[in-house]
Amino acid sequence: MNFESLNTPAALIDVARMNRNIERMQQRMNALGVRFRPHVKTTKCTQVVDAQMKAGARGITVSTLKEAERFFAGGIRDIVYAVGIAPSKLPQALALRRQGCDLKIVADSVACADAIVAFGREHAERFDVWIEIDVDGHRSGIAPDGDRLLPVATTLVNGGMQLGGVIAHAGSSYDYDTHDELVRIAEQERAGCVRAAERIRAAGLPCDVVSIGSTPTALAAEHLEGVTEVRAGVYVMFDLVMHNVGVSDTSEIALSVLTTVIGHQSDKGWAIVDAGWMAMSRDRGTQRQKRDFGYGLVCAENGDVLGDYLLSGANQEHGIVSRAGTPDRDIAQRFPIGTRLRILPNHACATGAQHPAYHAVGPDGRIDTWPRFYGW
Amino acid sequence: MNFESLNTPAALIDVARMNRNIERMQQRMNALGVRFRPHVKTTKCTQVVDAQMKAGARGITVSTLKEAERFFAGGIRDIVYAVGIAPSKLPQALALRRQGCDLKIVADSVACADAIVAFGREHAERFDVWIEIDVDGHRSGIAPDGDRLLPVATTLVNGGMQLGGVIAHAGSSYDYDTHDELVRIAEQERAGCVRAAERIRAAGLPCDVVSIGSTPTALAAEHLEGVTEVRAGVYVMFDLVMHNVGVSDTSEIALSVLTTVIGHQSDKGWAIVDAGWMAMSRDRGTQRQKRDFGYGLVCAENGDVLGDYLLSGANQEHGIVSRAGTPDRDIAQRFPIGTRLRILPNHACATGAQHPAYHAVGPDGRIDTWPRFYGW
Repeated sequence: MNFESLNTPAALIDVARMNRNIERMQQRMNALGVRFRPHVKTTKCTQVVDAQMKAGARGITVSTLKEAERFFAGGIRDIVYAVGIAPSKLPQALALRRQGCDLKIVADSVACADAIVAFGREHAERFDVWIEIDVDGHRSGIAPDGDRLLPVATTLVNGGMQLGGVIAHAGSSYDYDTHDELVRIAEQERAGCVRAAERIRAAGLPCDVVSIGSTPTALAAEHLEGVTEVRAGVYVMFDLVMHNVGVSDTSEIALSVLTTVIGHQSDKGWAIVDAGWMAMSRDRGTQRQKRDFGYGLVCAENGDVLGDYLLSGANQEHGIVSRAGTPDRDIAQRFPIGTRLRILPNHACATGAQHPAYHAVGPDGRIDTWPRFYGW
Repeated sequence: MNFESLNTPAALIDVARMNRNIERMQQRMNALGVRFRPHVKTTKCTQVVDAQMKAGARGITVSTLKEAERFFAGGIRDIVYAVGIAPSKLPQALALRRQGCDLKIVADSVACADAIVAFGREHAERFDVWIEIDVDGHRSGIAPDGDRLLPVATTLVNGGMQLGGVIAHAGSSYDYDTHDELVRIAEQERAGCVRAAERIRAAGLPCDVVSIGSTPTALAAEHLEGVTEVRAGVYVMFDLVMHNVGVSDTSEIALSVLTTVIGHQSDKGWAIVDAGWMAMSRDRGTQRQKRDFGYGLVCAENGDVLGDYLLSGANQEHGIVSRAGTPDRDIAQRFPIGTRLRILPNHACATGAQHPAYHAVGPDGRIDTWPRFYGW
């Protein structure tokens, strides 16, 4: 397949950029002396994950058991399912382990630990469980000094489960945009998770793994003392949210959506394109950041950013391209019908999920189709 | 499959509600004396569209040529592709017509009409083209009194194409929330599209079809004089955006997402569930409406609305359930781990698109799997 024959809208991966992003993160993790476990929820794509493993990743992180099943079928054994497990999903986790998958599951409450213990004992399975630590009040987990920590650890160990370690994700790192703030939140993530591990060990319980990570903190951390592994996902593609956070240049964003101009409203300075929210996702993650990119930043077909043109509006299969600031009333001449543009997305995880496949554009211009999956 | 064995998150269709929604719209269209052409982009699901056709729909509306291909393969011939066609998609449209599909395509510019004429002549195909009319400044189309209208019509007719009619969509109807405003915008949509048809006919050109519609205007219009058909999509499911617009009660929303409680942050009044934005979509369509429902309205497992509990936050596979107003610090007792809840979505088109299949819950509690497709 060649570039010209691509149907639009289409999700493109710039393979050279992707490889540079993978290399940058892996080298950083090597220098910091930790294992790296990429989060595959960003792409759910075999070819991308293969490239991450080949560069030195050790195991993967998943957000659904379907991801675990698919990537285990593809040969990856070391998998952590980084969402607190619903008791009703334990049979699915058991089936994976019985097939030889070294699946780690996550809990942050005595109720969940009790359910794991009861199910594990019933099926004579010693689940490997990591306790989720809440390092920033962002979502799930137990605060490093929280009362719940030792009861959960004790419940698991006394119940015969393997207490594998602790796991944290400083999701609030997405809310910052200066290097100093990122360094601070990265240190908070590290220190909180290490502190939780120390409390568990001080109680005479095992805690081998200390797993932390988010793309911004992974790229900002100054040292990772006490940490054994780092997880990150979106770094493989980057996006406009990460650009606003300050960890990537737009020239490093490896995912874009190819679209075609289908009409104009010249008096308003609008070009209408065939990429709407179905192709971009409804993600408006830059809305509250320092620069609001609408539904995406407009580039020429070759990927060069076109200054101030944004995908300023989106319906299901229609997008509106307009210039930020003063309307471009010559837009019909600038982007005639049939013009192809590329749109950089706000959020690579959300945009990718709208597409059954990526079209990987190699350095030689060759296009490969890289399928991705969805659902649960 | 029974309800208890459903994996979460899962997209549920309440079949009785869906059938009532279909019946309500079809009866209204029958009473107004127009054909009804549902927009299948909402569900992309054979079983749903079969129910719409069986109730009396005449043909379908699609937002992608993939939808046209799939539903034509399923036996539906009369299809309008309601997005202005990119010239590069004409070969795909031609292939459909050569297979016997009565596919109508849409144009709103001389440039696009020229491309259709050139391609049609080259392949000896008389495309059936409808001209898009802009009745509310919302998106694409030519204003009813716009200068472009007759040049586009003339280009098509002189070029040997079939000028089938005019097509309009008052997308701005979603911005209103009183009956009087909806009646007004419905009349604006009708009058504008009829006016465009009259101008074309007055120029001695054909214009058989006058096609209008959106769910709010279809349900608000007081008469449809001069209109031949109406299109609407989301009415088949309804959602919280439509509820805020004022055209449906929450008890009529046929789509919901089944989810399981996986944790709590009791001091904040949060329950964490396994439906995040991947299951709900990133659509925040109620954000600027009279009531902001966050990522959705929380119901009990049986579908009863639970007062003021909202899905107030969402990450990829985590949702945060909390009470609007004062935090519910007893939430861990109210919704223990393992509790199943249903979430009504902001936007049925966007939420459905996140799921490979619907789980259709029949009046007898029986569950059928209804696949849906995505992509282009």
